[in-house]
Amino acid sequence: MSQKRTSPNPPLVTLTTDFGTASPYVAAMKGVLLSIHPGTTILDLSHHIPCQDVRHADQFLAQAIPYFPAETIHVVVVDPGVGTSRRILLIEAGGQVLLGPDNGCLTSVVRSLGGGVVRQVSEPRYWRASVSDTFHGRDILAPVAAHLSTGVAPTAFGPVITDWHQLAVPVPRRESDRWIGEVVFVDDFGNLLTNLTREHLAPEPTRIELDGHVIPVTRVRTYGDARAGELVWLFSSSGQFEIAIVNGNAAATLQVRAGARVELS
Amino acid sequence: MSQKRTSPNPPLVTLTTDFGTASPYVAAMKGVLLSIHPGTTILDLSHHIPCQDVRHADQFLAQAIPYFPAETIHVVVVDPGVGTSRRILLIEAGGQVLLGPDNGCLTSVVRSLGGGVVRQVSEPRYWRASVSDTFHGRDILAPVAAHLSTGVAPTAFGPVITDWHQLAVPVPRRESDRWIGEVVFVDDFGNLLTNLTREHLAPEPTRIELDGHVIPVTRVRTYGDARAGELVWLFSSSGQFEIAIVNGNAAATLQVRAGARVELS
Amino acid sequence: MSQKRTSPNPPLVTLTTDFGTASPYVAAMKGVLLSIHPGTTILDLSHHIPCQDVRHADQFLAQAIPYFPAETIHVVVVDPGVGTSRRILLIEAGGQVLLGPDNGCLTSVVRSLGGGVVRQVSEPRYWRASVSDTFHGRDILAPVAAHLSTGVAPTAFGPVITDWHQLAVPVPRRESDRWIGEVVFVDDFGNLLTNLTREHLAPEPTRIELDGHVIPVTRVRTYGDARAGELVWLFSSSGQFEIAIVNGNAAATLQVRAGARVELS
Repeated sequence: MSQKRTSPNPPLVTLTTDFGTASPYVAAMKGVLLSIHPGTTILDLSHHIPCQDVRHADQFLAQAIPYFPAETIHVVVVDPGVGTSRRILLIEAGGQVLLGPDNGCLTSVVRSLGGGVVRQVSEPRYWRASVSDTFHGRDILAPVAAHLSTGVAPTAFGPVITDWHQLAVPVPRRESDRWIGEVVFVDDFGNLLTNLTREHLAPEPTRIELDGHVIPVTRVRTYGDARAGELVWLFSSSGQFEIAIVNGNAAATLQVRAGARVELS
Repeated sequence: MSQKRTSPNPPLVTLTTDFGTASPYVAAMKGVLLSIHPGTTILDLSHHIPCQDVRHADQFLAQAIPYFPAETIHVVVVDPGVGTSRRILLIEAGGQVLLGPDNGCLTSVVRSLGGGVVRQVSEPRYWRASVSDTFHGRDILAPVAAHLSTGVAPTAFGPVITDWHQLAVPVPRRESDRWIGEVVFVDDFGNLLTNLTREHLAPEPTRIELDGHVIPVTRVRTYGDARAGELVWLFSSSGQFEIAIVNGNAAATLQVRAGARVELS
Repeated sequence: MSQKRTSPNPPLVTLTTDFGTASPYVAAMKGVLLSIHPGTTILDLSHHIPCQDVRHADQFLAQAIPYFPAETIHVVVVDPGVGTSRRILLIEAGGQVLLGPDNGCLTSVVRSLGGGVVRQVSEPRYWRASVSDTFHGRDILAPVAAHLSTGVAPTAFGPVITDWHQLAVPVPRRESDRWIGEVVFVDDFGNLLTNLTREHLAPEPTRIELDGHVIPVTRVRTYGDARAGELVWLFSSSGQFEIAIVNGNAAATLQVRAGARVELS
């Protein structure tokens, strides 16, 4: 802990978990962080990632983290394998630092940041003295983030590894006259975001099949271009092919979840 | 961006949205804000305004914003018309600054702050370089708030306008021996807040009709003055005529929502 | 208000409420805090304590507050008795300060911090000029916390009392060959935390009865040691006997709530 931060910016640690907020787990992590480094600014990204949904976390992070400034430290705890032999990762990517379990949840964000240097968190001097089997967010990840925020170099926390776990992110494929992709994220409005993007879809599709059913969908530029209740498609704010119901919830109405197959032609 | 803040207080930006927190949208806005101005303090007011419920947002803001100190910057994104011709507003009111879509959601808060100077946000030099059709929170509102927090003057963001959209806020009316008003807000406890206030109700009513049905309600000063499960009325902490069920949820039990008619005599 | 803080750490005020975040109450408290002391850092612990559930709050706080550094000020508003004769407490414990209603919600956290000096908040010069009957979080607790955070001494807010309300915390008991305890907390994953701990359970139990039914439970060290859907028991990250369903929700599946009886032998 001899190194100190030289950045003029206040150190920033963000938290993304599936803990919910009726439970004391997020609060305990905040306490541990501030006990080690009272000067850290803590920012909540989400505590409502669906329980143990690593794929949801992966997409969430890929759409959020790239907007943050260099030197931000992001702590991710969506960790169904806590306490097993799964490792904990510290990844430097795009000037930021990501901390989380080695279960794939950091796959897409690292790709969107152009790759990263991946370390296994293995140096216990930066952990709580006693580490539980079921709460590494409090006992390992929060203290490591706190020490990082005081200026300890990433190299101090463990060795570089190359065999970290990456999700098999579904890739859209072309089949004769159609594109086949899938719903990769359902947001809080029930909008369906897919892995097909503006780049795939020239010319634009006129036939849209969702989970095997052709659905009548109006092409719009934004939601307000159609009437309330209308089923529409548009390109999302990140350029994804998106299906929505104006002022409604497409996921609930169509009974569709992440993973649903999308065919466009 | 030549002007700089002179206030001794740390710059404060609050966020009020209907985005929920399982989605990456709030996090993206925070990242954009901090990338432009790392010294900003971000404070969450709510990310659970019911989806696209402009009236709920209007009442929420009117009950919250007036308590904040001068120079606070409030960003509001409850924006069903995003990307259409609806404008974005910057309003200086009561020494604070409000940013949000021109859909009426700022009506009541501006009134409660005694009116304000309303500008249309139109100067793209303060926006993200590329503006999407569906996420102006990230692409316009967050960057404008960040630049404001660095000390850019409100005048830099666009011209004063006078024809901004204001909600027709329901006004209670007197009809012979009775007051007719409505439920304007249902809180998380299920308490029913109305637009009738202490000032209207002298002498106090003895007959209470809700959505056309007379209901037996005990007058109390505070919830704990009656037994659990009892239907009571009281003046809320803001002086509104309020119907509640002690330790229960009046909205769920009575099946009442905002907009329900209230008759008192 | 003549005393000033001498700590080098930024003053920190945490908030724990049952207000939810679709309501403007939390935001109003934040505004009041910052209007009195703009330099305060506000940290959300939870706004989703189940409505008026004092026991849930008690357990939440006991599992969260001890991790915070000295001088942290914690504001708790789970307050079904607001506006009645119930008092408001200021407790110095373990170097931290707790503020909340005198309804028992601070019982376990004070015990876990080794006891404390308890005062009744009675000096109105630190309150809002007008105090409502139903929102002491805004009108008394937030302003008192703000003044504390500026360095006003705890002694200024009211006299020491000894007869504060403490919950009868359920104590496990030994009955011939078995331990009898209860579920004291259900977390957001649906995991059942009990008041039986590692210290009680040597040798480890082999027969587990929940609400009068023997249930088949596999002993694991952590969740990932069993298959998805399996009913398991383990010691929680705080050493409590815990029942869980791997990747599932034990509380929902078993229809069990806090208060359920647990018999181990």
